[in-house]
Amino acid sequence: MVFKIFKRHVAMITYQYSKKFKYGKYGTLVGAAVLVSSSSPQRHDYNFMAPTITSRQHLRANIDDMKTKMELMIMRVQAEFCRALESQEFNGIKFKVDRWERAEGGGGITCVLQDGEVFEKAGCNISVVTGLLPKAAAQQMNSRGKALQSDKLPFFAAGVSSVIHPRNPHVPTIHFNYRYFEVQDGKEKRWWFGGGTDLTPYYLDEADAQHFHGVLKTACDLHDKTYYQKFKKWCDDYFNIPHRGERRGIGGIFFDDLDTPSQEDAFRFVTGCADAVIPSYLPIVEKHKNKSYTNAEREWQLLRRGRYVEFNLIYDRGTKFGLYTPGARYESILMSLPLNARWEYMNKPFENSREMKLTEVLKNPRDWV
Amino acid sequence: MVFKIFKRHVAMITYQYSKKFKYGKYGTLVGAAVLVSSSSPQRHDYNFMAPTITSRQHLRANIDDMKTKMELMIMRVQAEFCRALESQEFNGIKFKVDRWERAEGGGGITCVLQDGEVFEKAGCNISVVTGLLPKAAAQQMNSRGKALQSDKLPFFAAGVSSVIHPRNPHVPTIHFNYRYFEVQDGKEKRWWFGGGTDLTPYYLDEADAQHFHGVLKTACDLHDKTYYQKFKKWCDDYFNIPHRGERRGIGGIFFDDLDTPSQEDAFRFVTGCADAVIPSYLPIVEKHKNKSYTNAEREWQLLRRGRYVEFNLIYDRGTKFGLYTPGARYESILMSLPLNARWEYMNKPFENSREMKLTEVLKNPRDWV
Repeated sequence: MVFKIFKRHVAMITYQYSKKFKYGKYGTLVGAAVLVSSSSPQRHDYNFMAPTITSRQHLRANIDDMKTKMELMIMRVQAEFCRALESQEFNGIKFKVDRWERAEGGGGITCVLQDGEVFEKAGCNISVVTGLLPKAAAQQMNSRGKALQSDKLPFFAAGVSSVIHPRNPHVPTIHFNYRYFEVQDGKEKRWWFGGGTDLTPYYLDEADAQHFHGVLKTACDLHDKTYYQKFKKWCDDYFNIPHRGERRGIGGIFFDDLDTPSQEDAFRFVTGCADAVIPSYLPIVEKHKNKSYTNAEREWQLLRRGRYVEFNLIYDRGTKFGLYTPGARYESILMSLPLNARWEYMNKPFENSREMKLTEVLKNPRDWV
Repeated sequence: MVFKIFKRHVAMITYQYSKKFKYGKYGTLVGAAVLVSSSSPQRHDYNFMAPTITSRQHLRANIDDMKTKMELMIMRVQAEFCRALESQEFNGIKFKVDRWERAEGGGGITCVLQDGEVFEKAGCNISVVTGLLPKAAAQQMNSRGKALQSDKLPFFAAGVSSVIHPRNPHVPTIHFNYRYFEVQDGKEKRWWFGGGTDLTPYYLDEADAQHFHGVLKTACDLHDKTYYQKFKKWCDDYFNIPHRGERRGIGGIFFDDLDTPSQEDAFRFVTGCADAVIPSYLPIVEKHKNKSYTNAEREWQLLRRGRYVEFNLIYDRGTKFGLYTPGARYESILMSLPLNARWEYMNKPFENSREMKLTEVLKNPRDWV
């Protein structure tokens, strides 16, 4: 009986998701069950990339707990996104799936597709982690405005995170991350959501930018008409490379510390944003993936990927939070880095070039919708 | 008259340098004066890469000041090293020289050779900077054990810094940096030297490691028999990538906060270390630069360069110090990054491979002399 509710819960989410965004084939789950590459290969339910991190028994017994809902949501989003990307490849290349466990509690599933024809490096990671919040991590959190009382607090964190670096310089890189935290601070349980989706093109296509921001705005507007504008600005401010005076890309949305109007509403909003990833991005991939490109365009892409690395390693709080956490799985954290990147001394695009046109938008973020 | 003393001073340094290390052709200054690429090209004296940062008049009037001695020493070391590297190239490629000024005081000379046949990217930078120590920079310094009273202190900093990334995976990357600081803290003037030289091979050649460490040990032993062992360990501890449990390379020497036994002695030691760079490295370049290599070896080199980028952007205090300093010239700071780098998910060298042999030394630093 409980098992049936569990199945219905998943089916319901899938249904809402297909209905909300009309993008045809991306709404369906593709392909059969995937073998888990760790220890003993086994089949699993619901077309997830690997078995859930929390035992199915525990999930069934706590079906209304936000921790359960979040784990099932990120597992579903990961599977749908990975299969949608695989469907774009020409030669049948599939994601490599690594299910890993964390000694201190919880674990994750890291899916990486490397050296595809369309995707040079694509990573999509989920993690469901419990334990005591270490000092370094607590400090990272405190700097984000959550004043915690002590630095050894029981916590739960679940999130999905993905970075896709296509091979063709005309196809932009996308990043998204949706996460949920619970921290037990003395007698009080605190919780909040965070996340965002942002696009990093190598050449500016204004129609792409409008489409991308438009889909995100629609997802936001369903929940709160003030969200898009606020979270679009937050995104521009966050993905900033101060030493270069450039944004990482053309933005999207970014938010943190979201604990209103209710836990259920915030979860629905975050789910809506995560479900908007595929319709925001896949049409752009399809539009450009077969375009030819020159060596010079490829070199420009590699230079821009160098800037991506600069942001991720110097400024990104998520990366720092991860790498300073003892026992963190660095391969999953650094999966966001491109397969290839380049740094030239004093590279300056020519006046009026397409490279300069992109650079200007990175220096002065624009409104797209 | 003053001018003559100035000339003699330089000649004397050059003489000591040629005498101390018997490495033949590397001891002489090669080539004619270099044109300065900034504002108005002009010839200059002493075969430096560009005119001194401080005016010649001021240097002449303060010939015994450590600030003058340091500026002349780093200018000479830069020129000698750049010309020694140029002499290794086959096609006559030369360093591009950018002389830059800093609005807040001082400036620098950045020399970069990019896309050479032997050197894929070689950078050698000097800077002579004065101003008020900004808060972010003061914090970086405080963490190094110099307890400063306030965060707006007049300071002087001069240093030479270089990273050489050869094209051939059998030729190691070298980094060195020698620097001098003066800070006026209330009525007290504090000064100290810092620096180091370290090697990052892609394949381990034990004879190279012994030669490299041997030359550094000789340079140290001339001043203090305890220095090499102490600074070798400091280097292993500093160039560490904790999240990977690996050192960046096979080490060398590293020291900071050096203010003993006297200013003059410390300067002579630092000069000796800087003069040991060419004899420690150039024979290794000559030995390997004509070796053939495979695509697989090149890919391994690019992966290792990814680790180099990780260290420099996440952990290196010099890079952080630079990038968080408002108005810093990021092109000079990031000149240390390789032309190309690569990140593969879960790359693990095969057992008993040459790649594994290197990895083992990076995980467990060895004594070489």
